[in-house]
Amino acid sequence: MSIPPGPIRLTGSAYSALRPVSSARITGGFWAVRRRTNAQVSIPQGPALLEAAGNLANLRAAADGKGDFAGDFQFQDSDVYKWLEAASWQLAEHPGESELNAAAEKLIELLAAAQADDGYLQTYYQVAHPELRWRQLGWGHELYCAGHLIQAAVAHHRATGRRTLLDVAVRFATHIESTFGPGKQVDGVCGHPEIETALVELYRETGERRWLELARYFVDRRGHGSLHAGIDRGHDRDPGAAYWQDHVPVREATTVAGHAVRQLYLLAGATDLAMETGDLELRAALERMWDAMVESKTYITGGLGSRYEGEAFGDPYELPPDRAYAETCAAIALVQWSWRMALLTGEAKYSDLVERTLYNGFLSGVSLDGDRWLYVNPLQVREDYDPRPGDQTARRTQWFRCACCPPNVMRLLASLPHYLASSDAHGLQLHQYASGVYAAAGGTARVTTDYPWDGRVTITIEEASVDPNWTLSLRIPSWCTAFTLTGADARSEAGWVRIARRWAPGDTLTLDLELPVRLTRPDPKMDAVRGCVAIERGPIVYCVETVDQMPGLRLDDVVLPSGNLAEAHQADLFGGVTLVTADGCRRSDDSRIRLTAVPYYAWANREVGAMRVWIPQT
Amino acid sequence: MSIPPGPIRLTGSAYSALRPVSSARITGGFWAVRRRTNAQVSIPQGPALLEAAGNLANLRAAADGKGDFAGDFQFQDSDVYKWLEAASWQLAEHPGESELNAAAEKLIELLAAAQADDGYLQTYYQVAHPELRWRQLGWGHELYCAGHLIQAAVAHHRATGRRTLLDVAVRFATHIESTFGPGKQVDGVCGHPEIETALVELYRETGERRWLELARYFVDRRGHGSLHAGIDRGHDRDPGAAYWQDHVPVREATTVAGHAVRQLYLLAGATDLAMETGDLELRAALERMWDAMVESKTYITGGLGSRYEGEAFGDPYELPPDRAYAETCAAIALVQWSWRMALLTGEAKYSDLVERTLYNGFLSGVSLDGDRWLYVNPLQVREDYDPRPGDQTARRTQWFRCACCPPNVMRLLASLPHYLASSDAHGLQLHQYASGVYAAAGGTARVTTDYPWDGRVTITIEEASVDPNWTLSLRIPSWCTAFTLTGADARSEAGWVRIARRWAPGDTLTLDLELPVRLTRPDPKMDAVRGCVAIERGPIVYCVETVDQMPGLRLDDVVLPSGNLAEAHQADLFGGVTLVTADGCRRSDDSRIRLTAVPYYAWANREVGAMRVWIPQT
Repeated sequence: MSIPPGPIRLTGSAYSALRPVSSARITGGFWAVRRRTNAQVSIPQGPALLEAAGNLANLRAAADGKGDFAGDFQFQDSDVYKWLEAASWQLAEHPGESELNAAAEKLIELLAAAQADDGYLQTYYQVAHPELRWRQLGWGHELYCAGHLIQAAVAHHRATGRRTLLDVAVRFATHIESTFGPGKQVDGVCGHPEIETALVELYRETGERRWLELARYFVDRRGHGSLHAGIDRGHDRDPGAAYWQDHVPVREATTVAGHAVRQLYLLAGATDLAMETGDLELRAALERMWDAMVESKTYITGGLGSRYEGEAFGDPYELPPDRAYAETCAAIALVQWSWRMALLTGEAKYSDLVERTLYNGFLSGVSLDGDRWLYVNPLQVREDYDPRPGDQTARRTQWFRCACCPPNVMRLLASLPHYLASSDAHGLQLHQYASGVYAAAGGTARVTTDYPWDGRVTITIEEASVDPNWTLSLRIPSWCTAFTLTGADARSEAGWVRIARRWAPGDTLTLDLELPVRLTRPDPKMDAVRGCVAIERGPIVYCVETVDQMPGLRLDDVVLPSGNLAEAHQADLFGGVTLVTADGCRRSDDSRIRLTAVPYYAWANREVGAMRVWIPQT
Repeated sequence: MSIPPGPIRLTGSAYSALRPVSSARITGGFWAVRRRTNAQVSIPQGPALLEAAGNLANLRAAADGKGDFAGDFQFQDSDVYKWLEAASWQLAEHPGESELNAAAEKLIELLAAAQADDGYLQTYYQVAHPELRWRQLGWGHELYCAGHLIQAAVAHHRATGRRTLLDVAVRFATHIESTFGPGKQVDGVCGHPEIETALVELYRETGERRWLELARYFVDRRGHGSLHAGIDRGHDRDPGAAYWQDHVPVREATTVAGHAVRQLYLLAGATDLAMETGDLELRAALERMWDAMVESKTYITGGLGSRYEGEAFGDPYELPPDRAYAETCAAIALVQWSWRMALLTGEAKYSDLVERTLYNGFLSGVSLDGDRWLYVNPLQVREDYDPRPGDQTARRTQWFRCACCPPNVMRLLASLPHYLASSDAHGLQLHQYASGVYAAAGGTARVTTDYPWDGRVTITIEEASVDPNWTLSLRIPSWCTAFTLTGADARSEAGWVRIARRWAPGDTLTLDLELPVRLTRPDPKMDAVRGCVAIERGPIVYCVETVDQMPGLRLDDVVLPSGNLAEAHQADLFGGVTLVTADGCRRSDDSRIRLTAVPYYAWANREVGAMRVWIPQT
């Protein structure tokens, strides 16, 4: 069967260069394994974990009008919404999963019962503080939760065709529309962006332009210091306007700043808006901010946010490996924003970063078993790392007190096919290489590959277009310095090879991307990793972990002067993985040692020890 | 006149190797200038700033039984106490300052009026939450405030001979003694140490052994997780037992951990205890912890605490220059603890660190004009540093919402003579070189020097001992690799040169410490400054600031490959300072440049720009 298009609907997005494909399906390989674990382990555990954390009790309390609010945060409901979105994308692919379907429907019934008569829905304010509804814009997360509700509802509607959740979302959106705006009850924005992208999705799903207008209002209203002035009770600290991106309007901003997830959710929404409105000023700002972010505020893993305090971006080139915050949710937001930029512009560089993030800083957020999580994704953990309570830097955990990341990983893995390919009037673009079937108007391609371990990608046309110049575009990753394409003539341009011709079913191409192990040096302005190198191979960033080294070796005693790099595929580790070995030496006695490196995404899955991505050369 | 000995009284301290001198007076030179500014600018501004911040209104509210609590913190009273301590040490030297004396007496009257009938005194709990008295040990700071009250009272008593403040302190201490202990109303410790060292001082001042016993109780009661279990309302986060050093008893600890100021105040108190009790197990733990701290958790400036979150120590060798927290109060605590270790052991290394800290990470905390302050003392600020509200990393400020640092600087500068020299049964030890007069039992030495700009120290004996082997000991700083001593024969041992002989008034020695400019390389385990060097000369750590460089030069574009270092004393900058120049190059165009470095303590006193202590070599 084909997957309903999403998270960006095929129709609409009049001003974007590319559009989502009409169908994308992953059939095997690297991501199929991760998605199976997501479907069989992570998602099924969701309802019980949400129950244990009190999220469902909160919904019942709102529905029944009795009981206390459970949990520590106003945004507890959003965990439920993100899980529902994950379940919906899973049901889109596997509609026969009746147990999952029933669990989702039960939650939807509970949500409908919890919703107030006027459409409002947020259990914290319904149960604990009704008098503060819409009065704590900074920290209240009301529109943030509404955004996640809308996203879940859109996914559920696309997956099942049923309007049960969509009706709840539209009722809440209608209430928001009647509440927010110039001259209305509230003229302001939410401390945590998310509603913007959700409203554009709701516009795409329903065709009702008023949701697009509301999204535009929230994007443009932001950046005028309205949050700065009104700090809520219960939070005595003003985090500064930049924390929640209220210091400068998006269209005037020059770089990313503040809380990383807030910033990127906002920019994903602004990109959606630019796709639907053709707003060139907004687009220019988005391109400028993305470039600045990649230039000086992005880790080699695709991690974002170098400061614990405020879960925030640091100054340019402030990218410490040890105290990298690099929240899993920020990596997810980076995939979401960059993918939208790829669609808007058609440029390959955005999908380069999607790839880097997916294979590294995103995937590290979930254990290989699918049941333990990282909130923070550092690039170095020392031998003597001493975690504080609640500091999950190097310890995978079953759930978090602030549990934003786990269901966020679930929904991205469940919707992963959406991020791999696109189409335009002339053909199909393959942004990522995963075994699967990708259908654009007029043509369908089947991809077979052992990527990222192997650079060979075989593409077979299953349905051919009548267009004599139907174009298949293949992204050449920026890390790839040599490749061969056999089976067709092609034209190379700015990160793409394009094959334009008349196609017949069964036509087969082979793309061979060379992916030797390489050592990457940091920008000399990145003070914190001066004099170090990172090991990379293809899209995979490697790290060294204590458990793989000779007994007693301390990673703070390791030097990697030259390399003598070798690779070896090991089928019995992590379900199959290419390891890298390298000649190093021990600083303390100058003895030669052989180092073993594993993919960064796989770290902290075995016994606890030290880890580092950047290794000193002297 | 002679200064009353303090903060550690001459008598007592039966088990320490050294004792404070009976009199120490700074008569000129580097520190005389800073202390004059402290006396003429900083201290006089105190009462008005405390009034503006609400601290005095809180005392009036407690005295009158009406009014609201002002300020954000439970420990607001401690700012008043620290100012009173500073004023007292100033009055000890200049008893004729009637205006200062009157201001202090007015505050003391107010404190006496605010004190509850049962001796309790903390305006936050008296005015805002009487029902929570002694029920928020973690965050309440009640014993912390009591400790600062006691220290101020001891200083005031020594300075003036009057008991007005001492009586208030003893009443509160008596109330504490009746409240705390096994089987009493509370069996526990305060979240913020400070009472320990204060109670030992009170024992020294009054001779009443019960205060020593109470100090011992608080030291030994700590480290058993009692704070961990009882988190107060209003603070939903458990910072972890290590944050307030409740994770391990002092005598079992192997390194410093948690909130840096809390840790060092505790260890200063534990060292006082060891000095009075001869507790060898405690002494061994203190020596072990100090060594571990210096080995891997101390900045080159003497700054401590590498993490913003929790104002805390990081892991070993986690010493980022840009996000160094290095709170001014932590540097002060480091001076206080290390001085006590110097007295306890007689070892010169402790005074080495006192010197490094005084001239660098401590002195940076106050502007050269004495009226603006730094709370955080980083070793690098980038061109694009973007301060958040409340983040005073690179901006000197008149006062802070949490104003612990300014009056703490005032009291250390006012009591600075106490930290320069010591005595024992055989003679006098000069730990620091400042022009002044230092008197031990039987002998008095006058020091004349332009240190730290010049390495020549001239010492003249003014009063000679009858002891034919009376020994003058001079500390040779660990950075000093060559020195000459003229005028006497001497014996060198472990950081000291000692001259034992019969002395006559007028005997004069000259110590010449060579202090060439030097480049210091970091420990290779200090990841964050790998490949960099720091410029030092004598005890002074240098930094480069934008304002001193060729127009348009960015510090993130600067490389210092070799040096070609030169020095030049400039009389018209910062009231006289030795600058260092060095050959560097600009990475972007490989052009040669000449860099100018200023002492780190003087940074952020002119126009705002970038700054760095550690400079890349490539």
